[in-house]
Amino acid sequence: MPLVRIDLLEGKSEQYRAQVGDILYQTLVDVLNVPEHDRFQVITEHTKASLPFDREYLGVHRSDDCIFFQITLNSGRSTELKQRFYKALADHLHEGVKIRTEDVFISFVEVSKENWSFGNGEAQYVTPPK
Amino acid sequence: MPLVRIDLLEGKSEQYRAQVGDILYQTLVDVLNVPEHDRFQVITEHTKASLPFDREYLGVHRSDDCIFFQITLNSGRSTELKQRFYKALADHLHEGVKIRTEDVFISFVEVSKENWSFGNGEAQYVTPPK
Amino acid sequence: MPLVRIDLLEGKSEQYRAQVGDILYQTLVDVLNVPEHDRFQVITEHTKASLPFDREYLGVHRSDDCIFFQITLNSGRSTELKQRFYKALADHLHEGVKIRTEDVFISFVEVSKENWSFGNGEAQYVTPPK
Repeated sequence: MPLVRIDLLEGKSEQYRAQVGDILYQTLVDVLNVPEHDRFQVITEHTKASLPFDREYLGVHRSDDCIFFQITLNSGRSTELKQRFYKALADHLHEGVKIRTEDVFISFVEVSKENWSFGNGEAQYVTPPK
Repeated sequence: MPLVRIDLLEGKSEQYRAQVGDILYQTLVDVLNVPEHDRFQVITEHTKASLPFDREYLGVHRSDDCIFFQITLNSGRSTELKQRFYKALADHLHEGVKIRTEDVFISFVEVSKENWSFGNGEAQYVTPPK
Repeated sequence: MPLVRIDLLEGKSEQYRAQVGDILYQTLVDVLNVPEHDRFQVITEHTKASLPFDREYLGVHRSDDCIFFQITLNSGRSTELKQRFYKALADHLHEGVKIRTEDVFISFVEVSKENWSFGNGEAQYVTPPK
């Protein structure tokens, strides 16, 4: 269910971007209890002019490696769980692709469970219509 | 009002993508009671590496023709109406552009009616400011 | 915190797009009380076929210069404040880059303050986890 938009600057290898997607997916499963195989991602590269971001907001020193993750998912996760996810994703990306944890920007958009269709014209997360 | 992001793999014709946008628009009008002419779409093609999605999640067999529809619209539609929309969109796309219904992925993001300006610096869905 | 997606037709200069981003940022700070330096934008150009929008919806006459602004930000702003923002953004873009106010399309998506991590794996807008 999470539909994830990943935006980053151009210049990284396809393998790098694939690893970023893999690590994000696995962290969603491991920490946020997202179901296995629930993976739907849009990864987009941008020129520097097309991805303007502040390099110092809140005292966090961002570099050209900064990645935006915008994750649309069902509501209901606690603040504490989200906090564990932020830390886990930053740590796992640091371990896996050497990204600095300062460069991991995350935004959640929460929706209701009836707001998804995973194909076949059905709302798989709710009971079938009468 | 719906602002729709349509993401799909590259390789289809411009005509195909236009038809997909047309069918989506018409189904929003016909089933979700969106006003006529209320059409604002962003259609983006991606390489395979840039649009990773699971081919079997929830037992739905997705192919390279899979399309993501992310639809931001006003809240207030019932679950049953959303279910009718999912079925109608999948059916209409199947009829119109031969897409398999398994390949229609839909995500709604609901917002308040004061969250839109359609131009002129006005919030057309609410009364003017004092 | 606002994560902003700016979508427009191709054909404008890089400087034009930079000015649009600058004006948006400054108006968010000045009118919506967004903190200084809180700037995270994704600016994407599209072909005409990839950005279909109605040229007359609600009697607003849109041209090829139409820009979509989708702004994800914390909830809590009043309707009146949003209305002031719509007007200010349209006016400032008109003054700064000569865009017609009819061509300024704005969509807010509101989220909770715990839904953001600005780096370091932390949720900077809430107290640290225990």
